[in-house]
Amino acid sequence: MNLKAFVPALDWLANYKKEHFKGDLSAGLTVGVMLIPQGMAYAMIAGLPPIYGLYASTLPLIIYALLGTSRQLAVGPVAMVSLLTAAGIGTMATGGTATYIALAITLAFLVGLIQFLLGVFRLGFLVNFLSHPVISGFTSAAALIIGLSQLKHLLGIDLGRSHHVHEILLEAFERIGELNWATFAIGIGGIILINGIKKINKAIPGSLLAVVFGILVVMGFGLTEQGVKIVGEVPQGLPFFAMPDFSMATIKALLPVALAISLVSFMESIAVAKAIQAKHKDYKVVPNQELIALGLANIGGSFLQSYPVTGGFSRTAVNDEAGAKTGMATIISAGLIVLTLLFLTPLFYFLPNAILASIIMVAVFGLIDIKEARHLWSANRSDFWMLVATFIATLTLGIEQGIGIGVVLSLAMIIFRTTRPHIAELGKVPGTHFYRNVNRFEQVEERKDLLIFRFDAQLYFANTSFFRDSLEELVTEKGTALKTIILCFNSINNIDSSAAHAIEEIVEDYKSNHIKVIFTGVRGPVRDAMERAHLMEKIGTKNCFMGIQEAVDFIHGEESKNGKTLDEYTLQTNT
Amino acid sequence: MNLKAFVPALDWLANYKKEHFKGDLSAGLTVGVMLIPQGMAYAMIAGLPPIYGLYASTLPLIIYALLGTSRQLAVGPVAMVSLLTAAGIGTMATGGTATYIALAITLAFLVGLIQFLLGVFRLGFLVNFLSHPVISGFTSAAALIIGLSQLKHLLGIDLGRSHHVHEILLEAFERIGELNWATFAIGIGGIILINGIKKINKAIPGSLLAVVFGILVVMGFGLTEQGVKIVGEVPQGLPFFAMPDFSMATIKALLPVALAISLVSFMESIAVAKAIQAKHKDYKVVPNQELIALGLANIGGSFLQSYPVTGGFSRTAVNDEAGAKTGMATIISAGLIVLTLLFLTPLFYFLPNAILASIIMVAVFGLIDIKEARHLWSANRSDFWMLVATFIATLTLGIEQGIGIGVVLSLAMIIFRTTRPHIAELGKVPGTHFYRNVNRFEQVEERKDLLIFRFDAQLYFANTSFFRDSLEELVTEKGTALKTIILCFNSINNIDSSAAHAIEEIVEDYKSNHIKVIFTGVRGPVRDAMERAHLMEKIGTKNCFMGIQEAVDFIHGEESKNGKTLDEYTLQTNT
Repeated sequence: MNLKAFVPALDWLANYKKEHFKGDLSAGLTVGVMLIPQGMAYAMIAGLPPIYGLYASTLPLIIYALLGTSRQLAVGPVAMVSLLTAAGIGTMATGGTATYIALAITLAFLVGLIQFLLGVFRLGFLVNFLSHPVISGFTSAAALIIGLSQLKHLLGIDLGRSHHVHEILLEAFERIGELNWATFAIGIGGIILINGIKKINKAIPGSLLAVVFGILVVMGFGLTEQGVKIVGEVPQGLPFFAMPDFSMATIKALLPVALAISLVSFMESIAVAKAIQAKHKDYKVVPNQELIALGLANIGGSFLQSYPVTGGFSRTAVNDEAGAKTGMATIISAGLIVLTLLFLTPLFYFLPNAILASIIMVAVFGLIDIKEARHLWSANRSDFWMLVATFIATLTLGIEQGIGIGVVLSLAMIIFRTTRPHIAELGKVPGTHFYRNVNRFEQVEERKDLLIFRFDAQLYFANTSFFRDSLEELVTEKGTALKTIILCFNSINNIDSSAAHAIEEIVEDYKSNHIKVIFTGVRGPVRDAMERAHLMEKIGTKNCFMGIQEAVDFIHGEESKNGKTLDEYTLQTNT
Repeated sequence: MNLKAFVPALDWLANYKKEHFKGDLSAGLTVGVMLIPQGMAYAMIAGLPPIYGLYASTLPLIIYALLGTSRQLAVGPVAMVSLLTAAGIGTMATGGTATYIALAITLAFLVGLIQFLLGVFRLGFLVNFLSHPVISGFTSAAALIIGLSQLKHLLGIDLGRSHHVHEILLEAFERIGELNWATFAIGIGGIILINGIKKINKAIPGSLLAVVFGILVVMGFGLTEQGVKIVGEVPQGLPFFAMPDFSMATIKALLPVALAISLVSFMESIAVAKAIQAKHKDYKVVPNQELIALGLANIGGSFLQSYPVTGGFSRTAVNDEAGAKTGMATIISAGLIVLTLLFLTPLFYFLPNAILASIIMVAVFGLIDIKEARHLWSANRSDFWMLVATFIATLTLGIEQGIGIGVVLSLAMIIFRTTRPHIAELGKVPGTHFYRNVNRFEQVEERKDLLIFRFDAQLYFANTSFFRDSLEELVTEKGTALKTIILCFNSINNIDSSAAHAIEEIVEDYKSNHIKVIFTGVRGPVRDAMERAHLMEKIGTKNCFMGIQEAVDFIHGEESKNGKTLDEYTLQTNT
């Protein structure tokens, strides 16, 4: 085994330069400072005490820095995975209790194990089944759910634990009289502060300033007496080593959630890793190694009380902008969190929950992507509906169901589309050797004795009868003058055995009606499949041509200078 | 509504001629004579008293003859549907009891209703999802199960009611000492007789002769005293009118079976109807009307004690060979069955079950298709494995599960194949304007500054990263001399929004590396999609060409005489 492939850090460590460290230090500190409030806030989304967000920002980061292939990816707690955690284990235990915490930690272990195995068995390609519209619809809906899950902290009303948007809104509306004005003012202040600073200078850590602002306001005005909820005592010190709960019952119960989280979190991570890598040409992101790195980060973390982590959008972007060159930046971030755990936790005693809520809301509402929906409305209507369907399914049926339905629907759509593909009757573009769709190009020449038919999809069991019917329709239209059919096969990428049977029948049927069938532009793999099915013998290689013009010339009995039949080339085939 | 579309019989009735009647009469009587023993035998497969096979051969046939679009299809009890009936309701009641019979009749109603609704909502295309290998594997396995289900009648041993091949064989082997020699001799005699007559003259109704032989032998030698099981009293007279059982509990329990039967029986029926229609040019088979006709035949039948029926292979072939010209032939067959019910049922008292078993075994073992499996082994290996998987799943997991697994597997295979499609680097075939795969054609010319890349599949979310990675690999191979990439798009039949995003990124990425990306042969629908996504603006229509040669000429700054850019043609587009 190639050690550098398994520990990509060896590569950058061996070539580490002083100028790398400058960027890594600045980026590592910036991300670390972001990570303190974000980690605590995301733990709150997950239904965990804030300290667990800091625990999850230590060992997993170091493991990823050593094993991951991305050099800018900032791993740690993220909003989506935190929400999935809450949605998954919220029904099994009450948020914040010891049982709940134990479940979250075992979940991290399972997510890690699944990711590790997916990577080892090279199944990273599975993430490709998540289409753009599905990701966009899912992300927007999840962002809305996450944002609204914080409404209770922003309003200071103890809303129920529903994850359904309409229920949350309805309850908030009914109980708006219970609004805690001080809490609400702090939260809104936080939102304005973070957004305002972002507009002035992106390099200033707005969320940290909001944290400082919140703590000072609560302490200065003694707002805990006004009912403003605060984080309270945050335990000091590093997370201790403990075995996750390996009982079969727990594992069985958590498995579906773990599967959903491992795929979704990998999807988020690989998307951002690839996007950032496109700007850096000095390394490559290897999806299966990413799975192994994230998997081991989660497994390792689960022994030090970490809940599921992954690579996130916002901190990765900051890491890159702040100049991160290698995984050293992430190690520095983790170091800052360790120092915080050791020395700074007492400072967070008076941190109001409303500030954490404001940090979350600003982060996630930025993920609601109306622009993509608007773009798809005009660019690709069916993908627009796919986005809407995934969005609605996620909002109404739940997070994991939403993404599952999106994947199934988009695959069904792909299948359905190939059952009724685009077809074209072709005619000659005057003065050229090109043959084009008679319905798109006005000036093309048609002939009464010749039908040139193109079918734009792989030919397989689900569309052979469409092929046959649409060809028959055009043949009927042509009438009795028809002598020859040219089947232009250059958009048929594949044929299966059902298609081979159908082609044989079609050729024989038309032959018995004294109509000759000629093939042009048959792709290599299709030619191989036809030969294996002994179809070529029945068709006759003399009835196969490289291009349509050559077939037409052959019909005319005129050999153009380029007119070579397929015979001459098939003999050259070397694979 | 067009009455002739709903009652296709009006069409042939209006043009009915004397010479039609000659063929119809001969075919109708031949099929009717076949139908008497087959109907009784298939009812036995279904676990029903033999008379129910005759009941099912009356009204449903007349309804189909009036509403069906095929003029030779012989509708009635068939082996596969009878087996599905037994497998479906065998767990709910004991075969032959009043409850069991009531369930079978309600099942006919439900099957009819589902087929009728599928037809009304034009969902007949669903049957296209059954691929050739799946049908073949399923049919062979079902034939084996049906054949072995009759082993008890052939051996005269009362085997259990397992539908699992290995269990049946094991039990038969263990209890072979209980063999009833007289029964076995009659059964084997029947098989030899039917097969022998088939070889001498196909027009002689072998199964009817076997019935006569069986009755005479049992009566002549007094074999009932030797323990030969006989059909016994067959009630005389027509089936009476009765409402099926419409209780919610029954309907709910039968729904899954009904769904499977309605699809499988339609699949069998439409396949044979289309095959026969191909020989007759005077009418067309309309799948959705077929669903409506079969649906109403089953619904109508269920009020006259009929169990599910459909169009079958063997009798349809006989009907056609015997000269059937219209649905009149089927009406005559039904008439013969009515006469049989009124006057001839006492004749069947001494008919041995072993003869019915021999009729079934000869019929179904002919359906086991080893030739197709052998053909696929060399023609299409993956379709061979699909056949084997469906065969094994049907044998081991059950009839409905088998076909379900076959459909899901074949769709998964189609999807999976498009995620890693065939790709090719193209080079020029010397002395022509053709560009072909450099790995298949030895003499093609390549250039160091130019990469011509062809991707043979629709480009969509699940394969965009494969597209990107395989292109990048070829670009890396080419080295630093590379100046231009030609993306030959003429086998890309479709792009979705994920693909549009990817193309945009690819063009921009290579542009920033000073490599120009040019498109050729972009299909109409793909061009439309690219325009709607504003991709054409970014690519520039001047970088799109009809053919590869034109693009190469453009790169050379030489305009060939055919060299027109896409501009000139896209303006002509009229759809």
